[in-house]
Amino acid sequence: MVRHLIDPLDLSVSEIDDLLNLADDISAHPQKYAHACDGKKLATLFYEPSTRTRLSFETAMLNMGGSVMGFHSASTSSATKGESVADTIRVVSCFADICAMRHPKEGAPRRAAHFSKIPVINAGDGGHQHPTQTLTDLMTIRCKKSRLHDLTIGLCGDLKFGRTVHSLIKSLARYSGIRFILISPEELRVPGYIIDEVLRPQNIPFQEVRSLDEVLPKLDILYMTRVQKERFFNEEDYVRLKDSYVLTAEKMKAAKPDMYVLHPLPRVNEISLDVDDDPRAAYFDQVQNGVYVRQALILRLLGVKLPC
Amino acid sequence: MVRHLIDPLDLSVSEIDDLLNLADDISAHPQKYAHACDGKKLATLFYEPSTRTRLSFETAMLNMGGSVMGFHSASTSSATKGESVADTIRVVSCFADICAMRHPKEGAPRRAAHFSKIPVINAGDGGHQHPTQTLTDLMTIRCKKSRLHDLTIGLCGDLKFGRTVHSLIKSLARYSGIRFILISPEELRVPGYIIDEVLRPQNIPFQEVRSLDEVLPKLDILYMTRVQKERFFNEEDYVRLKDSYVLTAEKMKAAKPDMYVLHPLPRVNEISLDVDDDPRAAYFDQVQNGVYVRQALILRLLGVKLPC
Amino acid sequence: MVRHLIDPLDLSVSEIDDLLNLADDISAHPQKYAHACDGKKLATLFYEPSTRTRLSFETAMLNMGGSVMGFHSASTSSATKGESVADTIRVVSCFADICAMRHPKEGAPRRAAHFSKIPVINAGDGGHQHPTQTLTDLMTIRCKKSRLHDLTIGLCGDLKFGRTVHSLIKSLARYSGIRFILISPEELRVPGYIIDEVLRPQNIPFQEVRSLDEVLPKLDILYMTRVQKERFFNEEDYVRLKDSYVLTAEKMKAAKPDMYVLHPLPRVNEISLDVDDDPRAAYFDQVQNGVYVRQALILRLLGVKLPC
Repeated sequence: MVRHLIDPLDLSVSEIDDLLNLADDISAHPQKYAHACDGKKLATLFYEPSTRTRLSFETAMLNMGGSVMGFHSASTSSATKGESVADTIRVVSCFADICAMRHPKEGAPRRAAHFSKIPVINAGDGGHQHPTQTLTDLMTIRCKKSRLHDLTIGLCGDLKFGRTVHSLIKSLARYSGIRFILISPEELRVPGYIIDEVLRPQNIPFQEVRSLDEVLPKLDILYMTRVQKERFFNEEDYVRLKDSYVLTAEKMKAAKPDMYVLHPLPRVNEISLDVDDDPRAAYFDQVQNGVYVRQALILRLLGVKLPC
Repeated sequence: MVRHLIDPLDLSVSEIDDLLNLADDISAHPQKYAHACDGKKLATLFYEPSTRTRLSFETAMLNMGGSVMGFHSASTSSATKGESVADTIRVVSCFADICAMRHPKEGAPRRAAHFSKIPVINAGDGGHQHPTQTLTDLMTIRCKKSRLHDLTIGLCGDLKFGRTVHSLIKSLARYSGIRFILISPEELRVPGYIIDEVLRPQNIPFQEVRSLDEVLPKLDILYMTRVQKERFFNEEDYVRLKDSYVLTAEKMKAAKPDMYVLHPLPRVNEISLDVDDDPRAAYFDQVQNGVYVRQALILRLLGVKLPC
Repeated sequence: MVRHLIDPLDLSVSEIDDLLNLADDISAHPQKYAHACDGKKLATLFYEPSTRTRLSFETAMLNMGGSVMGFHSASTSSATKGESVADTIRVVSCFADICAMRHPKEGAPRRAAHFSKIPVINAGDGGHQHPTQTLTDLMTIRCKKSRLHDLTIGLCGDLKFGRTVHSLIKSLARYSGIRFILISPEELRVPGYIIDEVLRPQNIPFQEVRSLDEVLPKLDILYMTRVQKERFFNEEDYVRLKDSYVLTAEKMKAAKPDMYVLHPLPRVNEISLDVDDDPRAAYFDQVQNGVYVRQALILRLLGVKLPC
């Protein structure tokens, strides 16, 4: 049976552990995997552009000797001729061994998976899920803190529309001893269902606060997010709120010496450039980890036999 | 001398047989060809987007160990700077070993071939020719029916603008015992020159009918086509006609048990989804065959020496 | 320390000699380099489209067994989300081993290099620099004339906006015995700084003339350029001037038998088609040389160890 990755929760905790262990090994011994996907082809089906995510997938496949094909935006795909996602994936199943799909419509990758003969990886569907970003975040936290349990996690910025935030909360909620501090303006608080269906039922401690400064000293991880212009209904609200939660070197002085800063990127100005040289800035490490974790995922979904 | 493929009739019947035999062997033993094009480069020069065709060519080259480069639409090519096709192909001759060109202007690939130092494959020029689609259709018919002669072929839908239909008629007309049933609305009948220059001179039996239902039981092959919105002059005509020739599971009950359904894809709604699971639905097989036949073509045009 | 190529003058004369020698060897023995970049990845970061330059870089990498990724226009890149060049290059440093950047803004590749962990090659920044074109021009002149010194070089057309012209003048000015003849309409003369800062201080002989015909017999090299529509402020000026400096077979009769014609391409109509078959037409040789010189550059910037 073909296995897909559509939602981060499609993976059990032990499957995630296995993926992160494999990703760590790839990071430590990249040459060992340089030919693991010789002759394999990845299709990147990007119905909306996302350079970073696409190139990360492509790098993952190329790092293992495979090759890559695909399209980068709906305007250069058959979608403009009215083809359904179901037909497109059946066609692509004849071309590639595995595919990564980014789609503006929630649920499109799930629907594609239903008709696919090859593994489908959801590379972001609207405001919904982006499981490989979540795996990247988990790998980075685990690398920096040596654990995924017993951590105080601050999430800051746009907690309403940021799909990476929602997936990360749900994924970390499965580990013990996690406490969330949710830092956002009133207008961008986490959706009610996250609190009612994820945090409260499992008795996971959390606070919702307006100010980054006051909670910074308590955090083990600070996950910053971009306040995305395209999510706003009017320019005025965007301008008023976008600078509210900017992290600076000055503010970092109040943080623990081992509090790492993550960000899914791209950033606009929510982390000022003077933070980049701080050894606690982990957002570019995330990019590197994103490649390793995608390599691990591709290997597992393709069922590639690996040497011990 | 460099060999090109611009028009399906550039190939003799015996050359087509050779290509289809090679494609069959590739289908049966793909690993045998996994390194046949190591170090070779295919350029895909797509002056208008066509994801399916482009990815099929790219898959063909990647399946044989080669690599791929190119552009996907005129807007990202030097064409926007006013460069001629003649100059572009002379430049690309310095980059690639073989190229596939899709162009909105009829005759552009022929002109390119004239100036090219590498084989040029016409990947569709306007309403004109699309020879690798024709090879795909022929391979699929031969696979399913074990022959290309003595068949009753139904062609249904837009027979006026559909270039795949015109090429298929001309190519099948070279085999003995072929009978065509041309099913279309009055407005979308095959052009007169097909009848006057191809069918009548060779005394090939054909009928033109308006109704799919009445002729379905007689057919060995039903070739469905999309009624392309972009070919119509007004929205009204399009809406009135597009649903006239829709194939359904219900209608399929009247067809022979070994009547196969082909479609060049993408379909919009001219074949309803309930036909997809019918074992006679051969349109996704076509996609797979399209890769093999393009592999065979690339091998022959490059003159690659193959092991017996 | 990571080495970049942003400005042609970043390279010393002896480094250029070394690159051209290596490029000559690649031209003579391409197979020797067929696996020199196995496992290496080139990122082509094209914030504005340039098919020729991009495909030349990609061909260079593919010719040496490496692979390629990237984006072809700003609209399909993260730039649309407001990401800085500094952040983009830090991200790409996690993906690729080397990158080629084309950017509409002067200085963008220099800024990228400052933040990059991998070699950055400037593939053209606005009206500024395009060093691999200059290397291509130098290689072609050296191939055809067996030297880079003691030559009378005619530069014709748009000498004001043509960045390739400015770079070529500065680069050739470093060799002895060079004399320039600058052929252009009044409106498109070389900028004053080229004369005041490059030619006069080094006492390099030059003339500025309006007529191509009268100087043609004196030239060893004629470097033609396109009068780019996009550089003009109004259509009228463009129409009036664009045909002023057209080279024809008839005019070529007045040139020396070993006077070679170069052009950075794409041409529109400044070289008429009847010149193409003249053995002195070297502009398609340039395209081929462009691949070799880029291969040499990639090898040197990556520090690849080569067999003797």
